[in-house]
Amino acid sequence: MAATIALMSQPARTLAAGTVGTVETRYLDLPEPLHLDCGRELHPVRVAYETYGTLSPARDNVILVGHALSGDAHAAGLAEAPPAASTRDGFGAEDRDSAGGKGLGWWDGMIGPGKAFDTDHFFVICTNLLGGCRGTTGPSSIDPATGRPYGSDFPVITVSDMVRTQRAFLDVLGIERLAAVAGGSLGGMQALEWAVLFPDQVDAVVAIASTHALHPQGVAWNAIARDSIMGDPAWQGGHYYGTGRAPDGGMGVARMVGHITYLSAPALDDKFGRRLQSGDDLRYTITEPEFEVESYLRHQAGSFVKRFDANTYLYTSRALTYFDLARRHGGGSLARALDGVAARTLLIAFSSDWLYPPSASQEIEQALRALGKPVDFQVIEAPYGHDCFLLEEARQTPIIRRFLAQGRAG
Amino acid sequence: MAATIALMSQPARTLAAGTVGTVETRYLDLPEPLHLDCGRELHPVRVAYETYGTLSPARDNVILVGHALSGDAHAAGLAEAPPAASTRDGFGAEDRDSAGGKGLGWWDGMIGPGKAFDTDHFFVICTNLLGGCRGTTGPSSIDPATGRPYGSDFPVITVSDMVRTQRAFLDVLGIERLAAVAGGSLGGMQALEWAVLFPDQVDAVVAIASTHALHPQGVAWNAIARDSIMGDPAWQGGHYYGTGRAPDGGMGVARMVGHITYLSAPALDDKFGRRLQSGDDLRYTITEPEFEVESYLRHQAGSFVKRFDANTYLYTSRALTYFDLARRHGGGSLARALDGVAARTLLIAFSSDWLYPPSASQEIEQALRALGKPVDFQVIEAPYGHDCFLLEEARQTPIIRRFLAQGRAG
Repeated sequence: MAATIALMSQPARTLAAGTVGTVETRYLDLPEPLHLDCGRELHPVRVAYETYGTLSPARDNVILVGHALSGDAHAAGLAEAPPAASTRDGFGAEDRDSAGGKGLGWWDGMIGPGKAFDTDHFFVICTNLLGGCRGTTGPSSIDPATGRPYGSDFPVITVSDMVRTQRAFLDVLGIERLAAVAGGSLGGMQALEWAVLFPDQVDAVVAIASTHALHPQGVAWNAIARDSIMGDPAWQGGHYYGTGRAPDGGMGVARMVGHITYLSAPALDDKFGRRLQSGDDLRYTITEPEFEVESYLRHQAGSFVKRFDANTYLYTSRALTYFDLARRHGGGSLARALDGVAARTLLIAFSSDWLYPPSASQEIEQALRALGKPVDFQVIEAPYGHDCFLLEEARQTPIIRRFLAQGRAG
Repeated sequence: MAATIALMSQPARTLAAGTVGTVETRYLDLPEPLHLDCGRELHPVRVAYETYGTLSPARDNVILVGHALSGDAHAAGLAEAPPAASTRDGFGAEDRDSAGGKGLGWWDGMIGPGKAFDTDHFFVICTNLLGGCRGTTGPSSIDPATGRPYGSDFPVITVSDMVRTQRAFLDVLGIERLAAVAGGSLGGMQALEWAVLFPDQVDAVVAIASTHALHPQGVAWNAIARDSIMGDPAWQGGHYYGTGRAPDGGMGVARMVGHITYLSAPALDDKFGRRLQSGDDLRYTITEPEFEVESYLRHQAGSFVKRFDANTYLYTSRALTYFDLARRHGGGSLARALDGVAARTLLIAFSSDWLYPPSASQEIEQALRALGKPVDFQVIEAPYGHDCFLLEEARQTPIIRRFLAQGRAG
């Protein structure tokens, strides 16, 4: 099945590429406790994952893909049951709803035979992140100390903790080295963290629409989203599981905020303009959506709260605001933090992405270049804001294929 | 008392200007019912207002100033009691807290002897908007039909309704013509609406950091803010008065969203960077602020909910998203909407304002110029985003003084 997706005002897809077919999410329990940055230990830890392609006998063709804030392990292929309600309309791409692991994966356009991450050559693995709500241990998992879900007793985690979880998971699979670590947004943070934490085990990094440290406005948006969730009385201090109530209201507002930050103002203008729900007549209502963009936001919020756990949102949001390569690994210096990196690095950014702007990738590029490390930085001119990393598959593909081919040749 | 305000990384104020002194908010009841755009009538209507300077015998020196979303009639001078807690720190200027009419007015740097709106020449009037919560009739006022506060039974109002209220108020004062109508943001919308609704009664318009129609991203931010308030269970369908509960949580989140949209990303970077509350040590907390910008946002939200009514926020937010000169007055054409304008127009925008970007003012300029109407458009290069209209007094002053002087000479 070809990954043909109708995208508004985008060029028709010309990818001659196949699909990884029907896939299944699997689960693996780590044998050892995880030691976390906060000082606590976590055990047991289960990891949900999917794989695409074939592991080479030498186990040297592995690409690990990290997902973003609202993603999961289902990155490619078709899950067994069809999606209940597909939101793959090319807008609000972070909402591509793989609804409980069903439907097409969130990066299906990028992973498969002939695609950017070519499963004819590579064995691609995607894990649900530590703290997740799609099979990997997170706040909704059972705390062995109490027999009830952790809720807000779950330890506060970092991107380093997520990466160490992936490292422990790959150990069980007997995979020592990675041909590449790749991801967009928070997934790109993981890729960069891998290159710093385990420099001898990563050949290449592909960090897309990402950063070495989220800028203060991004920190603020995340704080607002979290405060919205925690301010919902149904959050109940984080212990809402089993109460029949969940902070859907606060979570919906959090999602709306996120959603607008993932898109560009011109893209919203193109898509909705100031069109009203009912022709040219105002209905003079405070409570009901009047503009199309208002209705769209409510719909997106409503579908998101059905598929995502609010505590996972809180923990993941906190982790991505904490992420700061310079502070954590370089005593405040990005150059010092990246000094040990041995991987080749590809950075891709999008001109209209104001949440993870090209300037952040450029700072990484400059630091790596000053250190004499191999780095390629590409800015793609595209109007869809941060969501471009999920939408602009056709334009990322040749860049990524060329970059990965250089590694296979070398 | 000189309006000297310490502003972060701004040049020292060099304005040789005085103050209007101690002021008092007064109240006036309109004699007739208001006929609203939504088809309903409103009666009684009280208007809170302040005046600065002296009305000329010919009553031809009046400047009406309109306030923004969270403002009030206290635009200049010192209210009788000192402010409980001044937030005039140059940041989050929309939060300049005149705390129940106390403290310095929200545009004190612009209104006074020798200032932009020079009270040595002009009689400046500012009214609290229809729908307000600072003395003018609004959702927290008593509904004569029930004897209880309107709450969400208050009629949905428009910027036209606000302007017609001002017109009826000035009728009572015996003021027929305005030498100028001025304001920033929603205040600028009122100024433009005046010029269209009452073309024979307005000599000049000063619309600052404003627009003829908010762009879809701005509509979205406002929708998110309103959904946050209405999603708070304490909103109680809009009838929270007298219940001992108010939607402070949802309102706080709404304010945080607004706050970030009023500032520019570089300004946030300058002010807060990624500084932590506690040096370089993460405290690994989900519930507590960790970054300075997080703590700042919570503080701003907390002080705002104490001084502002959530329903007024809802109604005013709705009105400013409805505002659309082309749709309302031009059958979709801005040129047609502005065709009857007789006033000279000054438009000021700020380079870093992404909520009311210069492009919107430019569209107004081009439409007026194409119609052969006198218009001056100035973009001020300044880093503070939309809040510039409250902060950049020194740079707006000569532009506005020159523009108004041309009118007095002519």
